Amino acid sequence: MKTLSGVNLHVALIHYPVVNKNGETVASAVTNLDLHDIARAARTFGARALYVITPLDDQRELAEKIVRHWTSGPGGVHNPKRREALELIRVTTSLEETQSHIAGEYGRPPVIVATCARRYPKSVAFTTLEERLQTGTPHLLIFGTAWGLAPELISASDILLEPIGDHEGYNHLSVRCAAAIVLDRLMMRRP
Amino acid sequence: MKTLSGVNLHVALIHYPVVNKNGETVASAVTNLDLHDIARAARTFGARALYVITPLDDQRELAEKIVRHWTSGPGGVHNPKRREALELIRVTTSLEETQSHIAGEYGRPPVIVATCARRYPKSVAFTTLEERLQTGTPHLLIFGTAWGLAPELISASDILLEPIGDHEGYNHLSVRCAAAIVLDRLMMRRP
Repeated sequence: MKTLSGVNLHVALIHYPVVNKNGETVASAVTNLDLHDIARAARTFGARALYVITPLDDQRELAEKIVRHWTSGPGGVHNPKRREALELIRVTTSLEETQSHIAGEYGRPPVIVATCARRYPKSVAFTTLEERLQTGTPHLLIFGTAWGLAPELISASDILLEPIGDHEGYNHLSVRCAAAIVLDRLMMRRP
Repeated sequence: MKTLSGVNLHVALIHYPVVNKNGETVASAVTNLDLHDIARAARTFGARALYVITPLDDQRELAEKIVRHWTSGPGGVHNPKRREALELIRVTTSLEETQSHIAGEYGRPPVIVATCARRYPKSVAFTTLEERLQTGTPHLLIFGTAWGLAPELISASDILLEPIGDHEGYNHLSVRCAAAIVLDRLMMRRP
């Protein structure tokens, strides 16, 4: 199996607006292991960047500190493979700033692809998105922390990706595992 | 996509014998998030159990305490979906004890399937293993913590599964994400 190198795919981990257990919109805290695991998956499957998005100053500072430790700090010397992964991380304040950043680098804003554990009438199949990625158009896959993306992000997305699991059964993966599976499904050409 | 319900697949997370960064055999510490993430993936994709294996008494006690909190303790009341996942966890001292446990439940010891980030001449393709699972024979997928399974576990396995990533590139996933991807590839029937 080979990764699809012509694909222009970016990943974003959203900390606001997301929902809590009661469906209320909240800002979640940055989790160290989310950054490591999703950056490692992004690097393994050839995504171009992992955007860590939060409007909270102290949370952006925490994320930047983690990234620095593993890129320019002692972590990168201890573990160069981890450095290669965490070098893909960009810390931003909002989805809008992230879109502008990608537009600045690639000449056009990305197609926004929302992920959700529930199925909606407008959900798009993995195989359909995989085909669209072959065009080389920048796409930004967005994942929600806590109990998932706030409804306004799901309705504002250009594409809503179908859920990973059987929608009649149990589908409660961590955001770390969900992001890894989605990247594997989209970026690895099967024999 | 539907999970493959006739398959008799078990997962084991090995804390000894595994290797450290320098290739030395060590016993690793139990990590709370490994148990949660891999149990959630096991439940999502229909694995029958997650065995958490360590010969260290205090580490088994820690694992049992985490499981109790989320099954019979306050965690399970707060989050019943998490309880459903952590109910799949069995804590054991060794691979041998795990094999006996599965043999006691299903009438024969499981086929041992080792996972590794490196490719070997005897590596078996995901599609081949997927076909073998259709027979309903019990299989036990083993994952190493730290820097991976010790060489003796890899050579003693019945099947060595091919690596997830492109073996010429970067393939450094967390064990949490690797286990989730392997379960997704083996247990979800693609359209």
